[in-house]
Parts: sequence; structure tokens; C-alpha cells
Amino acid sequence: MRFKFPLMAIGLEVAMIVLFGLFVQYETDETLLQQPNSTKSTDVARFLELYPLFQDVHVMIFAGFGFLMTFLKKYGFSSVGINLLIAALGLQWGTLIQGILHSHTQKINIGIKNMINADFSTATVLISFGAVLGKISPLQMLMMTIIEITVFAVNEHLVAEMFMATDIGASMTIHAFGAYFGLAVAAVLYRPGLRRGHDNEESVYHSDLFAMIGTLFLWIFWPSFNSAIAEAGDKQYRAIVNTYFSLAACVLAAYAFSSLVEHRGKLDMVHIQNATLAGGVAVGTCADMAIHPYMSMVIGSLAGIISVLGFKFLTPLFATKLRIQDTCGVHNLHGLPGMLGGLAGIAAVALGASDVSTPAMQAAALGSSIGTAVAGGLITGLILKLPIWGQPPDEYCYDDSVFWEVPRWREHDSHFYEHQGHNHLEPEP
Amino acid sequence: MRFKFPLMAIGLEVAMIVLFGLFVQYETDETLLQQPNSTKSTDVARFLELYPLFQDVHVMIFAGFGFLMTFLKKYGFSSVGINLLIAALGLQWGTLIQGILHSHTQKINIGIKNMINADFSTATVLISFGAVLGKISPLQMLMMTIIEITVFAVNEHLVAEMFMATDIGASMTIHAFGAYFGLAVAAVLYRPGLRRGHDNEESVYHSDLFAMIGTLFLWIFWPSFNSAIAEAGDKQYRAIVNTYFSLAACVLAAYAFSSLVEHRGKLDMVHIQNATLAGGVAVGTCADMAIHPYMSMVIGSLAGIISVLGFKFLTPLFATKLRIQDTCGVHNLHGLPGMLGGLAGIAAVALGASDVSTPAMQAAALGSSIGTAVAGGLITGLILKLPIWGQPPDEYCYDDSVFWEVPRWREHDSHFYEHQGHNHLEPEP
Amino acid sequence: MRFKFPLMAIGLEVAMIVLFGLFVQYETDETLLQQPNSTKSTDVARFLELYPLFQDVHVMIFAGFGFLMTFLKKYGFSSVGINLLIAALGLQWGTLIQGILHSHTQKINIGIKNMINADFSTATVLISFGAVLGKISPLQMLMMTIIEITVFAVNEHLVAEMFMATDIGASMTIHAFGAYFGLAVAAVLYRPGLRRGHDNEESVYHSDLFAMIGTLFLWIFWPSFNSAIAEAGDKQYRAIVNTYFSLAACVLAAYAFSSLVEHRGKLDMVHIQNATLAGGVAVGTCADMAIHPYMSMVIGSLAGIISVLGFKFLTPLFATKLRIQDTCGVHNLHGLPGMLGGLAGIAAVALGASDVSTPAMQAAALGSSIGTAVAGGLITGLILKLPIWGQPPDEYCYDDSVFWEVPRWREHDSHFYEHQGHNHLEPEP
Repeated sequence: MRFKFPLMAIGLEVAMIVLFGLFVQYETDETLLQQPNSTKSTDVARFLELYPLFQDVHVMIFAGFGFLMTFLKKYGFSSVGINLLIAALGLQWGTLIQGILHSHTQKINIGIKNMINADFSTATVLISFGAVLGKISPLQMLMMTIIEITVFAVNEHLVAEMFMATDIGASMTIHAFGAYFGLAVAAVLYRPGLRRGHDNEESVYHSDLFAMIGTLFLWIFWPSFNSAIAEAGDKQYRAIVNTYFSLAACVLAAYAFSSLVEHRGKLDMVHIQNATLAGGVAVGTCADMAIHPYMSMVIGSLAGIISVLGFKFLTPLFATKLRIQDTCGVHNLHGLPGMLGGLAGIAAVALGASDVSTPAMQAAALGSSIGTAVAGGLITGLILKLPIWGQPPDEYCYDDSVFWEVPRWREHDSHFYEHQGHNHLEPEP
Repeated sequence: MRFKFPLMAIGLEVAMIVLFGLFVQYETDETLLQQPNSTKSTDVARFLELYPLFQDVHVMIFAGFGFLMTFLKKYGFSSVGINLLIAALGLQWGTLIQGILHSHTQKINIGIKNMINADFSTATVLISFGAVLGKISPLQMLMMTIIEITVFAVNEHLVAEMFMATDIGASMTIHAFGAYFGLAVAAVLYRPGLRRGHDNEESVYHSDLFAMIGTLFLWIFWPSFNSAIAEAGDKQYRAIVNTYFSLAACVLAAYAFSSLVEHRGKLDMVHIQNATLAGGVAVGTCADMAIHPYMSMVIGSLAGIISVLGFKFLTPLFATKLRIQDTCGVHNLHGLPGMLGGLAGIAAVALGASDVSTPAMQAAALGSSIGTAVAGGLITGLILKLPIWGQPPDEYCYDDSVFWEVPRWREHDSHFYEHQGHNHLEPEP
Repeated sequence: MRFKFPLMAIGLEVAMIVLFGLFVQYETDETLLQQPNSTKSTDVARFLELYPLFQDVHVMIFAGFGFLMTFLKKYGFSSVGINLLIAALGLQWGTLIQGILHSHTQKINIGIKNMINADFSTATVLISFGAVLGKISPLQMLMMTIIEITVFAVNEHLVAEMFMATDIGASMTIHAFGAYFGLAVAAVLYRPGLRRGHDNEESVYHSDLFAMIGTLFLWIFWPSFNSAIAEAGDKQYRAIVNTYFSLAACVLAAYAFSSLVEHRGKLDMVHIQNATLAGGVAVGTCADMAIHPYMSMVIGSLAGIISVLGFKFLTPLFATKLRIQDTCGVHNLHGLPGMLGGLAGIAAVALGASDVSTPAMQAAALGSSIGTAVAGGLITGLILKLPIWGQPPDEYCYDDSVFWEVPRWREHDSHFYEHQGHNHLEPEP
């Protein structure tokens, strides 16, 4: 283990540099002249026009996903740190693999949409990371990043080019895909030793506040996520407006149902951190369609509801019956709402909200996304199960100190709490 | 209480969806053709041009205001969580009520300015929330959101359409309005039991750092707040420049006076978190006028000074003499600087910095904003005083655990500190 | 000390206001008509086009640098608070001093580039602040801000106007300059009493997470930093793309080498917080050149490697042999990568990636940046060594409580840990 991780990281980066040297180039006058449909001046203008949306997505990927997973009391370094590592690797690999699949020339020309799509491709891995959070090594995550983004790019190519389906906010190709891929990996890596939970698998007060940094930046910038690669004009406009209202409606639904399902009507931070975002996921597929603002609010509300219900009733069931331990509950934030998004897309196309696809093609896209995700995840899980990747033992799950130098003070902290707990803990009001 | 909150939230969201279904539509070719003054192509371009400014405002509303209020040691979940809840409700209601008042057709067409204005309307409630923070239930806040945004929209309509006054950064219509509305509610909800303070009404080291996240994102994006709906060109440009320099000057004044008024010349985090923002509030009304950069720095400096002085001398006086308990000191951050902004606007118009209004109209706008705020706040306070809203008892004020499932660990935490405090606390250097 | 800080702050702000009144004006029709090369309409359009990039830089300066330095367990208030203070002062002074040096008329016209450059100029001071963090008073920092920005502006003027060198992302003029200036000040202010370290000079678990807020926002927005003042079109486009990939490559290199050099192959938060950013620094000088994406990845990887090696081997050496105590290790994040950036710039120009400069001119710019930084830093250090600035005694270094009212609870906190530590601390797994 001592040298496997650094050597693998170095090897991957060297490979990326070589591949970039061979295949990647700037989008310059010459390359654009080869594409008769675009003129340079508009493309350069479009670059700066879309750059703020790219930056919003960039914040979501690196700060949003990163902090969202810091809710565990002893796993904040890994959450935000490994998130950065795999996203940085993923965006390089995503640039290459998407470029190879989509490019019509021998070279990949980097434009603003490539950068946005590269960031998008990392999102699938970050979602899957949530399912296996705390039970996996950085080395395993490097491996998973390379495999998952490859499978993702192939499925996305199928969806866009073969099924000609539309999925502008990627409910199916990113969210459902990432969730079911991660769940399949988690199923293969099932740890019987953790079936009664783990002492570290809980939050402390301030770790829940750190997680809210992630929630809020995801929530705020989600309209940019769903609209960044939309067609300029009406479609991009609608993608922003629909997502804005879907998320707002989702918040009220999530709060209401969090209070409904919880003991004594209290709110649960897990729901607030996650289910409030489900509206952004679920409105994704039909975000740029003329579905009417009120319909995006219906979709958002339903997403908030099923997400809370999933956290409350499905996640425990998954852990016990299906033997799938889903640390962050990605099934509830990305899986179910992603499926809802796919179904909403089918319905919207059937009802004529878009004429670029058919219901059958949309259904094929949903099936393909979940199918390739499960298949890819199972294979990836089997590879990661090989005893060569430094997977942490059960007792050090959800614990940064296996992979990080952790400040002395944190140790006192947790030890202290354990010792003092019994004397000072009093029943809540 | 068990079901009141979720049922109210669901009922409100259902109502929003129905009203959106009836009144709201996309801004499309057809609707725009009805408005001869705008052409579609420019409007769509303007959408993406203003979208980054909208996103800056969006960050301020959800992350800025949310984290600014997390300074209390045991009330972080509520601060950032209820902030999200009421802003999500408020932006839906604000879209409707502003649309109804401003629209010349039967339908409300959603454009980028509607979204910015919807976000703005929530700011009033978030400011008022600061005055009653820790003493009010989520249910009460839902109620207050609906009432306050209605009153706000009416006053804004008066100011803009009847008095024809200008208030581009909303010093009067948002900041002064939100502050005095909140203070009026707090006055009605006065709690004699808290007149000697409350054990929970203080910060811990890290809660003060969480609050700085809010401060900084508010500070950074304030130029966008003051310019987002300004007229394109010179006026928008000036709104950005004036706010930028006003805030910079305000910081130095706030630091200087924090040190001047504090015991032994130390800096006080409460001042730094709040008074450094007063320059953004106070320059709001005349932000887009040709007042000269140095004059915005004078306004910013004065705002920083009166804000610190307000925290030091007025807030204690308010609590004891006026029986108004202002948790976050919104009077010092929004009330006084908002009034200063209104007065600066009157002076600037009198001196010819703008020709779109008259001093008398500006004075009427200021009077109207404070008048409707106080009246609206008093009535709202009386409604919220009804014993049906689940208001927390005095001993559970400023305590998340009344409304939230709080991690076990937090409880140890605070209990521990209380037990150990007397033995280990030593005088500061 | 009691009144020196507030009076100095007030005096400086009054001076700024007077100077702004005399020299600064809006960029209006009239002033632009005097410059035949620009037309108003394009400039106003350019203002809003660049405004999102300005805001990204603004986030980096105030939230990025501010939180990056909160890693110390007892110095978070000062890190984020003094950062705000000196940046707010610095942007005003930077506007003036850069305007005086660059303006061809008697007046300084404020445009978006002035605002970006004003923010840039503060970055030098914030970098230097990192070298002396915890050992210096707010009063000393006000002084240092005024001096350093003056020297910076003179050097930048030399580099751009006399040597005609190019340094679009400011590897030399900001990063190397800021680092060596700070190190020179730290050398003069050497504290023998701290040669064995200081109990406060360490992080706690959550302070390291706060620092990651800074790291991530710096990392995310660095492409905007390197491109904000680049020439519109291809150059600006390349500056964004090169920085994006340089940073991604840098992350993998930094993680790999952090694990390689650390005991038992673990990752070190200090490296992750800092060295992951070195790629942004190092690609700065040639960011807008046609160096090819793979070459920016090479530069980024090298920067990540030398940064980690610097933290591991050079910083301890500096402290013991060179008697330079570099609190944040700015030499490793800004000094070495800045020099690497300067050298890469020389090589890139020599290889024909840019025709606006020559290798000799680039080398002169690098030499000038480091030379003026060291000279300026030494003189500044001597001035700050005068016993009139309220420098904290050794025992209160890295401790907020000297300059801030600190919540009671924090004190318990640290005292507690010290008392309990010996009983409960157990060896790490």
C-alpha cells in the first residue's frame, strides 16, 4: 500500500499528459474553419457567455459535492479531499474519452462545452463515491474514476447519438447512472461487519453545518447545471427558469415530509441536506422543454417527497434486505429523482413538450442508463474487491486517520466525548 | 404542533402551484410581441448577460444570509435551514405578488428581472428573521413570509409607481423596510423572561467562523445586488463601482470604531460580521447616480461607523428600554444604514446627481417604507402572538433541538463545556 | 496601542477619500472620447462581460485567501478578519497607485480592469501576510499594505512598460513578488523564541476544513484570475483552458507526492490545502500563450511536486538555518511555483509561443520582481521592527485573543484539551 497510491496517481497523470499531447488541441481559427457551421467570432463570444455557467458548475463539482459529504464526524478530510482528487483526474479523462467519442476529426478541440462536459462526467463518479463513502481507499477511487467515466461516456453516446434522446440536465445519464453504478459497487463490496452500523457513521453538530455549505452551493447553482449545455435562446432560458422553480417547490415538500416522517415532527438534517436538491435532479431531463413553470414545481415537489421517503424507509431496507450500504443515500438524492426525471421526460415528450425525441427513445435512454450503470458497477465492484487496493478494514471505516495525518486534537476530541458521554448526556427536551 | 407545520407547508406549496398554473408563463416570442418596446433577440441576450448577477444575488440570499446567522452556538441548523425554507417559499410568492402588481397583462411572464426581484423580495423576510431569530417557530416564519412579502410588494409599488422615487439598491424598500418590520414583530413578541439574556445567546469560536462565510459572500457580491436591476449602461456601471468602493471604505471605518468602542481596543466579531456590510446597504439608494466614487466612500464610512455605534449603544438600549430584542442587530446593519441610504438619496437628488426623482418624492418613499414596515410588522406580530403557532418557550429559545433532530454529540459538547467551565477558565491575557 | 490602530485606520481612510476626490472619476462618455481607440458601446459591453471574471477574482481575494489561512486552531478570526481589512484598504490604495502610474491623463477613470487590477494588487499583500501570519499586529499590516502595494505597482510598471515583458497570470509580479517580500519581512522580524515552534502553531480538525473552503474557491476560480485581464479572444480563451488543465494535473501530482514523502504514505492536509494550487501559480506567466494544453499539465505537475517537496524539506530548513519563519509556507505555494512560472515564461517565449516579448525581457522581469520584493521586504521589515506597532509577544503569537474579543467557550475548549490530553490520547491506528 505504501507506494501503490502515489505510483498509480503519477502513472495516471503521465498517461493523461501523453494522451493530451497526442489528441488535444486548442480551438483555434484553423480548426474552426474546418467546421463550416460555426464562425470564429460567435464561438469566442459564446465562450465568455457560457463561462459563468461553467464556473457555477465548477463550484458545484468541487465545493458542492465536496462539502455535501463532510457530514460524517471523522471523514471530512476524505470527503472533500478525495472529491478533489477524483474530480481533477476525472475531468482530464472525461475530456479525452468524450472527445474521442464525439469528435469528427482526429483531434479534440477544447471549447467551453468540452470543459462543461468534462466537469459533468466527473459528477457521475462523485455521486457513486457517495454510495461507498468511508469504505473505500483513494486507490480504489482512482480506479473507479477511470472505469466509470468510460462507461458513462459510452452510455451518453448511446443516449444522444443512437437513441437520439434528450436529457439536458442529465437526470438519466448522470444522476440515475451515477447512483445505480455506485449502488452496484456498494452491493459487491458489501461489508457484513457493518450491518449493525458503525460508531463513526454519524455526524457532529459542526460537520452538519459544513455539509450545508455543499447543499447550498449545489442548490444555488443547479439552474446553471441544467442549462449550461442547452441550446442558446428559449431552451437555455427555460432550463434556468424550470430548475429555479422546481428547486423552490422541492424545498417546501422536503421540509414538510421531513417533519411528517420524523419522530415528534422534528426536521432531520439528512433530509434537508439532500432531499432539498432532488428537484434539481428530477427536472433535469425536461428542463429545457416547454413544460410550463407550474409543472416543474410539481416535479420538484414529488422529487422532494420521494427523496425524504427514500431516506426514511428505503435506505434501512437496502442495508438489511438488499445488502447495499449506501453511505450518503445517493439512491434517494440521485437514483429515485433521476428515475422520476427520466419518466417525466417520457411523459413530457409524449405530451408534445418537445419534438426532438419520442417517448420510446426516452424510455430506451432511461433503460440504457440504468442498465449500463448496474452492469458497469457490478464489474467495477468485482475489480475493486481484489485484495490489492488497500481497502480499509471494517473498524477503520469512516475514519480519516487511515489515509490522512490527522491533527492530534481531533483524537482527544472524539475520545473525550466517548468517555464523558454517559455522565453528561441528558434527555432532549 | 405535530402536524401543523407540515400541513401548512404542503398547503402553501399546493397553493403556489395552482396560482402559477393560472397566472405564470414563460417569456416567449408571443408574449414579447405584445410589448412593442422590447425585441426578443435583445431580451434573450440580456437574460444571459444578467444571469451572472442574478446568481451573485442568489448566493447572497441562500448562502450569505443563511450563514451570517449561524453565529449562535446552538442555532446553526435553524439559521441556515429556516433561511432556506422561507427564501424558497418567498421567491415563489414574491414572483406572484410582484407579477400581479407590475404586470400590464393578465399573465406574468418570467424573465431574468422577475427572478432577481423574487430573490430581492425574500431578502426583506430574511432581514426581519434576524430580529426574531431563535424566538420563533418555523410555522410562524411561513406565516410571516407570506404577509411580509405582500406588504413589501405593495410598498415597493407605491415607491416606484406612485412616488416615482428611485431606490436601485433598495436601501429603503428592502433594508430599512425589512429591519423595521422585524423590529415591530419583535416588539410585539417581547419576552420578559429573556430580559437578562439567555445562556444560548452567544457564539462559540467555530460558529463565528461559519458566520464569516455569510459575511464574506454578502460583502463580495453586494455590487451585484445594487446593480442587478439597474438600467444597462452607465447606471449599472456606476452601481457596481460605487458599491465596490463604499464597501471597502466601510470596512476600515468598522474596524476602527470596533476597536475604539471595545474594552481594551480589541475587535469584536459581531461588528466585523455585520458593520462591514453597512456600506453596501447605505449606498443602495444612490448607487446608480453620478455621486462620484469618493462620495460613496464617505457614505460607506458613515454607515460602518453608525452600525458599530448602534451595536454598542443602541441594541442594549432597545432591549432594556424599548423592550425590543433584536437577536442579530438588524437595526444596526439594515435599519440605520438603510435610513442613511434613504437620506443620502434625498441629498443626492437635491444636488442633481439624478433627474429621475425629486427630494420630496424620495422623502415620501423613505417615509412610506418605514411606515408600512412598522404598521405591517405590528399587525404581523399580533397575528404571530396567537397561541397556535408553536412558539418555543423561553428556556428553549436559541436552541435547534426544539425543531431539529440534533446529533447526540452536540449535546455532550455543550453539557461538557458547562461542567468544565468553572475549573478551567482562566483570565484572558 | 489602545488608540494607534483605530486612528491609523481612520487616518488612512480619510486620506483615501481625499485622494479619490482629487484623482478618481467614472469612466464616462467624455473621458472615453479622449481615448480614440475605444468606443463607448464596446467598453460598456466589455464591462459586464468581464464582470463575472472580476467577481471570481473577488471571491478568491476575500473568501479564498481569507479562509485558506484559517487552518490555525486559534487564529481563524485574525486570518479571515485581517485578510478582509487589508484587502479593503489595499484595493483603494491599489486603485490610486496603479492609476497614477498607468494613467495618461490627470484623472484616473475607473473601469472593470482597474477594479480587477486593484484586487490583484491586494493579492501580493495577502500572500506576504501568509509568511508573517500570527506574528504581526493589525497595525503592522496596515503599514505593510501601503508600502507593499506601492513597491508592487512600481515593479509591475517596470515589468510591463520598461521590460515590455508579459506576465498575464502574474506568476512573477504577484506570486513570486508577494512570497519573497513576505519572506524578507519574516526574516527581519525573526523570533528566536519561536525556533522550537509554538503550541498554537497547529490545526484542529475543523480548522483544517475551514481552510479547505479557501483552497477550493481559489482552485475553482483560478482560471478567472489568470485570464481576467487577458486580451479578448484567443488569448483569454487559452488563459482559461491552460489554467484549468494545469490545476487538474497539479492535484494528482500533489496527492502523489504528499503520500510519497509522508510517514506511512498518508496524505498531509497542509499539502492538499496548498500544493494543489501551485499549478495555477506556475502556469500564470504563459497562461495566454499557445503552449499547448499538455504543456500546461506538465507545468502544473511540476509545480505540485516542488510545492510538496518545499513544504516537506525547505520550510523546516528555512526556519532553522535561514531564520525565516514562514507560517503558511508561502514560499512553497507562491515563491517556488512563481519562479517556475517565470522560468516557464522565458522558455515559452524562447520557443516562440508568444511574440510580444523576448526571453531576455522575461528574465529581466523575473529578476526585477524578486529583487524589488526582497529589497522592499527588508526595508518594510525594518520599519515594522520599530517598537511602536504593538507587535504581539512570543507567547501570544498565533492567538486571536490578543486582538479580538474571543468567545468564552473557545477558552474552555483549548484549556480542556490540554488537561484531558494525556489521559485520553491513544496511539493512532
